[in-house]
Amino acid sequence: MTDINRRNVALMAVLAQIFATSTSSAEQSPPSNAQTGTYLDRMPRAWRGNEKIAIVIYDHMTPLDVVGPHYYFGRVPGAEVQFVANSLRPIPCENGLFIMPTATFETCPADLDVLLVGGGTNGTLAAMRDPATLEFIADRGARAHWVASVCTGSLLLGEAGLLRGYRATSHWIGRPLLADYGAIEVDERVVFDRNRATGAGVSAGLDLALALVQRLRPLEFAQAVQLLSEYAPEPPLHGGTPQTAPPAVLQQVQQLTADFVNSARQMSVAYRDRH
Amino acid sequence: MTDINRRNVALMAVLAQIFATSTSSAEQSPPSNAQTGTYLDRMPRAWRGNEKIAIVIYDHMTPLDVVGPHYYFGRVPGAEVQFVANSLRPIPCENGLFIMPTATFETCPADLDVLLVGGGTNGTLAAMRDPATLEFIADRGARAHWVASVCTGSLLLGEAGLLRGYRATSHWIGRPLLADYGAIEVDERVVFDRNRATGAGVSAGLDLALALVQRLRPLEFAQAVQLLSEYAPEPPLHGGTPQTAPPAVLQQVQQLTADFVNSARQMSVAYRDRH
Repeated sequence: MTDINRRNVALMAVLAQIFATSTSSAEQSPPSNAQTGTYLDRMPRAWRGNEKIAIVIYDHMTPLDVVGPHYYFGRVPGAEVQFVANSLRPIPCENGLFIMPTATFETCPADLDVLLVGGGTNGTLAAMRDPATLEFIADRGARAHWVASVCTGSLLLGEAGLLRGYRATSHWIGRPLLADYGAIEVDERVVFDRNRATGAGVSAGLDLALALVQRLRPLEFAQAVQLLSEYAPEPPLHGGTPQTAPPAVLQQVQQLTADFVNSARQMSVAYRDRH
Repeated sequence: MTDINRRNVALMAVLAQIFATSTSSAEQSPPSNAQTGTYLDRMPRAWRGNEKIAIVIYDHMTPLDVVGPHYYFGRVPGAEVQFVANSLRPIPCENGLFIMPTATFETCPADLDVLLVGGGTNGTLAAMRDPATLEFIADRGARAHWVASVCTGSLLLGEAGLLRGYRATSHWIGRPLLADYGAIEVDERVVFDRNRATGAGVSAGLDLALALVQRLRPLEFAQAVQLLSEYAPEPPLHGGTPQTAPPAVLQQVQQLTADFVNSARQMSVAYRDRH
C-alpha cells in the first residue's frame, strides 16, 4: 500500500464517521437516484430504471462539463450515477472546486449504460497521457451502451481509441484535432452517431445530457426535468461560437488557448502516426 | 469541541496531507484565479482585479446552481472565489455530488464584492431554518457590492431580509412566494435591481453569472469567457418554462414539487406575518 493509498483509507474512515453523524443514512450507501427522496419517489413507474452511469473526473478538469450532465442524470429515477476517478481522494478541478469521487477505476461497475467524460485544458492533457485513465475509458467504453463526452473530453475518447469512424464534435478549440483520432469532425453542438454522443464546449453538457436523457426515458420525463431545471436559456451576450463572437475576441481566446491547442495537437498527431 | 468538530479537524489534517503530496502547491493556498496558470496569466492587464467572491453552499443544495456561476467567476482574473459553508466538511449536495468548502462563515472575508446563494428543495428549506446560515447571508449581504441568487436561493435571500423592496425572480415554483418577503416578483430569467441580481431556476445561473461578469469587467472579457464556455445553448427540447412546457408535464412537476412549495410557503407567510 503506498503512502497516498494509506492516506485515502484514513480519509475515507474519517468521512464515514462524519457522514454517519451529520447526514442521513442515504449518504452512506452508493449514490442511487432512487434514494434521494423529495420528489423522485413520486414519479410514475414507467419512468423507473436501473442504469449504471459513470462520470469520469480527474485533476484540473472543468467541473461544469460534468455537473451540468450530473443534474439531468442524477434525476433519472432508479439510475445509479457515480463520479469515477483514479482514487477516492477529492479531485481538485479548476479554480478551487473539488469534487469527491464515489468510485475508483477498480470499483466502477464493469458494464455501464452511460460513460461520460468531461474536458478541460491542462488537466485534460495530463489525463490523455495517463495510461490508467485511458485504459479505464477504453475498457468501459468498449461495452457501455452510451459513450459520451463534453468539451475536450472528446480528445480523451479519441486517445482511448473510441472515436475511430464516428462523427463527433468537441470544444471548438479541439474540434480540428478529431480527424487525427479517425473521427469525422462535425460542427454541431451535440452529435450522436450510433452509441457515441459528443458535445461542444463546456455549456453544451446540458444540451448533450438532456438529449441523452430523452433516449433513456419517455419524452415526458425529459420534458419534466427540463422544466424542473428551467432550461430556457437566455444568454445576455450573443457570441458563444467562433462564428458569432467578435473577431478580436475570437483572436484573443485563440491566443489564450494556443499552448493547450499546440500540446493537444502534438498528441493527436502522434496518435495518428501510431495508427 | 463537539464530536463533529473533532472529526472535521481530523478530516482536514488528512486532507492537508493528501493535498501536500498529490497536488501542486497552488491548491494549498486560498483559491485565487490568479494562480490557476494556463491562460489567465496572459490576459490583458485591464482585465485584472481583486474581487472577493463568496458562493454559499449547504447540504442537499442543487450543485449546478453554483457550479455554472463558478465557471464564470472562476475565470475573472485576480478575483478570489470561495465556496463558503458552515464548516469545512465536504458538503453533500444533491444526488451524490460533494463540494468541498474553501472557507467557513467565520473565515469568509467580511466585505465581499459578490455574495451568491444557490438553491434546491429540501436542502434549501433546511438552510432557511438555520440561524447561522441566515445570519451569515444577512451580514455579508448587507455590505456586499453585489448580492445574487440562483433558483430558490432567492428564498434564502428573502428569509435573510435582503429582498425587501427589490424586484426579483426565482425558480418558477418559488417565485410566487417572493412577495411575502417584500420583493416585487418579476417573471424574467435574470433580474437586476440596484445591487441585487436574481436568477430563475438552476440553469439560469449561467445567464446570471455572465451578466454579472459583464458588470465586473470590460465587455470584451465577458465575450471571451462566453466564447471559452461555448455558451450558445441549443436545448434539444423547448419546454423549459411553465408557459412553454406541455400542460400535462407542468402539472406533473407541480405535483412532484408540491411538498416543497407548501413547506416554503409556510415559511414565507410566517416571515410576512413577522414583518
